[in-house]
Amino acid sequence: MRTDSEEMDPTMAHEPGAPLRVALLGCGVVGSAVARQLVDHADDLAARVGAPLQLVGIAVRRPQRPRPDVPVDPTLFTADADGLVERADIVIEVIGGIDPARELILRAMAHGASVVSANKALLAEDGPTLYAAADAADVDLYYEAAVAGAIPILRPIRESLAGDDVRRVLGIVNGTTNFVLDRMDTSGAGFAETVEQAQALGYAEADPTADVEGFDAAAKAAILASLAFHTRVSSGDVYREGITEVTAGDIQAARDMDCVVKLLAICERVTGPDGGDAVSVRVHPAMIPRSHPLASVRDAFNAVFVEASAAGPLMFYGRGAGGDPTASAVLGDVVAVARHRVAGGRGPGESAYADLPVVEMGRSRTRYHISLDVADRPGVLAQVATAFAAHDVSIETVRQQAAPGEGERAKLIVVTHAASDAALAATVDALAELESVDDVASVLRVEGA
Amino acid sequence: MRTDSEEMDPTMAHEPGAPLRVALLGCGVVGSAVARQLVDHADDLAARVGAPLQLVGIAVRRPQRPRPDVPVDPTLFTADADGLVERADIVIEVIGGIDPARELILRAMAHGASVVSANKALLAEDGPTLYAAADAADVDLYYEAAVAGAIPILRPIRESLAGDDVRRVLGIVNGTTNFVLDRMDTSGAGFAETVEQAQALGYAEADPTADVEGFDAAAKAAILASLAFHTRVSSGDVYREGITEVTAGDIQAARDMDCVVKLLAICERVTGPDGGDAVSVRVHPAMIPRSHPLASVRDAFNAVFVEASAAGPLMFYGRGAGGDPTASAVLGDVVAVARHRVAGGRGPGESAYADLPVVEMGRSRTRYHISLDVADRPGVLAQVATAFAAHDVSIETVRQQAAPGEGERAKLIVVTHAASDAALAATVDALAELESVDDVASVLRVEGA
Ligand SMILES: NC(=O)c1ccc[n+]([C@@H]2O[C@H](COP(=O)([O-])OP(=O)(O)OC[C@H]3O[C@@H](n4cnc5c(N)ncnc54)[C@H](OP(=O)(O)O)[C@@H]3O)[C@@H](O)[C@H]2O)c1
Ligand SMILES: NC(=O)c1ccc[n+]([C@@H]2O[C@H](COP(=O)([O-])OP(=O)(O)OC[C@H]3O[C@@H](n4cnc5c(N)ncnc54)[C@H](OP(=O)(O)O)[C@@H]3O)[C@@H](O)[C@H]2O)c1
Repeated sequence: MRTDSEEMDPTMAHEPGAPLRVALLGCGVVGSAVARQLVDHADDLAARVGAPLQLVGIAVRRPQRPRPDVPVDPTLFTADADGLVERADIVIEVIGGIDPARELILRAMAHGASVVSANKALLAEDGPTLYAAADAADVDLYYEAAVAGAIPILRPIRESLAGDDVRRVLGIVNGTTNFVLDRMDTSGAGFAETVEQAQALGYAEADPTADVEGFDAAAKAAILASLAFHTRVSSGDVYREGITEVTAGDIQAARDMDCVVKLLAICERVTGPDGGDAVSVRVHPAMIPRSHPLASVRDAFNAVFVEASAAGPLMFYGRGAGGDPTASAVLGDVVAVARHRVAGGRGPGESAYADLPVVEMGRSRTRYHISLDVADRPGVLAQVATAFAAHDVSIETVRQQAAPGEGERAKLIVVTHAASDAALAATVDALAELESVDDVASVLRVEGA
Repeated sequence: MRTDSEEMDPTMAHEPGAPLRVALLGCGVVGSAVARQLVDHADDLAARVGAPLQLVGIAVRRPQRPRPDVPVDPTLFTADADGLVERADIVIEVIGGIDPARELILRAMAHGASVVSANKALLAEDGPTLYAAADAADVDLYYEAAVAGAIPILRPIRESLAGDDVRRVLGIVNGTTNFVLDRMDTSGAGFAETVEQAQALGYAEADPTADVEGFDAAAKAAILASLAFHTRVSSGDVYREGITEVTAGDIQAARDMDCVVKLLAICERVTGPDGGDAVSVRVHPAMIPRSHPLASVRDAFNAVFVEASAAGPLMFYGRGAGGDPTASAVLGDVVAVARHRVAGGRGPGESAYADLPVVEMGRSRTRYHISLDVADRPGVLAQVATAFAAHDVSIETVRQQAAPGEGERAKLIVVTHAASDAALAATVDALAELESVDDVASVLRVEGA
């Protein structure tokens, strides 16, 4: 809501060499690192931009709070974020959440400022409102830090691959869940126990819901899909399954297949119900072969694997979170938008021309790994195979293991060819009904073949 | 050499929606893929740029030659490259080599065209001349495809990391040598035999000199160092050792250390002789631990590992060559420079403000792995250790192996702490002189610890 009357002309040329006024909104994990780097690298930044960057204020909730790790004049801290954004050429939003971040960004742009944000939740929920405002004000809106922290991934997808056709993105974009799954793989421990370890080590929050339930990854998947496919995908469009149901048994089943379990953000070009182009965007745990480049992403690292028609497979790897790494991405964006203000022009705006429908999860196709506890007698395999065939799910391999010490029981491990999620779910229901099947012990999607 | 008088005003605004005229220089491996993609993706490219791209001509040596794989009007082919560049808004140079590529690029820029090139040799030899011409003409000069083919690496270094401090770049930037070293590792075969296999499979040229002697990697190292450190490094500044001397024994020595041998392009910020900032830029084979992300780069793939102060470790992985992958990078650049023509502005120009000296190889510091054939008797280890100490080279580990079947001989394997190349070379000379040392069997640098 603009209330004042003095309007800046955003197209007004920047006076050569004059400082660019930078406002920082938020001074927590990311903001304090941004402030430090702005101060520590002031000379380099000025040389790279062609003009000095002048920090004109830092908006926080508690401006009186001592912040010894932020080496700036304490009078720069203010609770008046609304006022601050009106005095800046560049606004860095690292408050997070939807409100007041959205209002502040809109206000900043309306006053002619370019905006850099790390706010995946906001971009994924309401990106189009922000893009439209950036266009209307003829300013930049950059947000590299919103996905995969320090890893340059949005700029490569948006710019380097702008002449190519991205077919598929598979991302490990949440460090907490990767840490937990990696530990479960190396230690054999269960989910709950491993989350506690992760909390103790600072890799998981006290309330880990946003991470372990896949909400964080889903927001990033929405942003990745929008940019990769030149379309609009918001968090609500993303199918989401977290890792809370992943058991030590699933991890062991993956090991037996020479696979690891990862929480993946998956964006794919697919054929829609009407035969036209569409996209599938989903977050769920999946087995991937140990030979896949994503399999060796350990600890809390992130990586994004991209397949493009001409470029072929690409992978981008690095730290997905943390104050300094995230601030590196923020400052890369700050230099870019600052250069545009010095030299004229803007970076690429939203490109949603392809306007592709998002298919429902039932139509997404993956391979599946299903482990069944069955009776060990003739005819059981035929019954099981018939259930798959009845739902048009084609079996790639099947392996029978005698269950040790239980003469009449066995384990059947079935890996399917790619099938629709709906067909798979129906097959699993039918299997559970079979008299010869004691238990559908584990069902896991398989990706990255 | 400009000879005509009608000059285009490069700052002349682009008429909204009017096509941008694209000239293609060269139609070989890369050029033919570029032409195909320009045609096949015309609609997508127009949507992403905001104006259609119109191919106005293709300059080749032999315009009459039938090119059935290039789906364009045959009258577009011309031998008159000089004339063609004067009729274009965007010139794509994929001829290669120094001349006439340099003259054509300069002529194109003088006529107001932006230029996209894949020419690492030219950029590494004479980049500053081209940058100066781009500045003078106020046009873009982009060359993502010149390093690591399809992998977006120059844009991330130049733009995404513009707010950070790059400390070190370790790149596998030559597919041929990576293929050869990877095969030597898996097969145990020697260099010459493996190069023949690579030639038979199309991974090495009939004359493999540029690849196996490290010239290609050295050009890429110069470009990477210039961008990463905001300074000027040309191919001539790069210390270069190829892989022709790498033996099956070296590869085995690496295996014994749980390492692999890779040809690395290394760019490092170091302290210069005067105590000031400087850079070390070099290409040589080196052992790296199998646990390092670069170690799992197989076949002819490329990858670039970057360490930045705030971002931490990053890795970029993908195909380093081939028509389609390289064309993907070229077209990404074409879209960027085309957008600038539509919307106004330019991308980041040369940034050589840091102007850092390149240290000579003798001052570069690495760890070393040295394998010695020695007499197996008391006092030998003391003699060897003394030779290291005399040159101020500190030993990290030493391991003695009895040489099987040779009672009085043994193998000593020494790994040093980081030491200057000059000190190391002097140590090796001194070791070779020792009466108890039969042979300095292998000397390999160790990186990526
Ligand atoms: N942390 C990471 O590793 C990471 C990585 C990638 C992206 N991000 C994104 O970066 C953003 C910031 O994350 P963070 O971890 O730095 O958050 P944080 O540590 O919780 O910091 C939030 C900051 O915003 C300030 N703030 C909160 N409400 C405010 C309001 N109404 N007005 C003004 N200031 C307000 C807080 O002030 P006080 O200091 O006074 O409380 C605090 O300084 C989020 O969008 C997050 O998703 C974070
Ligand atoms: N190949 C790769 O995988 C790769 C990867 C990264 C970068 N690059 C770089 O891309 C560039 C091109 O490589 P390439 O492999 O495509 O080369 P190429 O297959 O040898 O093609 C060279 C093209 O240039 C034309 N040409 C040569 N001299 C000319 C002249 N004086 N005037 C006009 N046209 C001339 C040739 O015409 P004719 O067809 O009539 O002979 C041919 O079409 C080089 O700079 C290379 O370093 C290549």
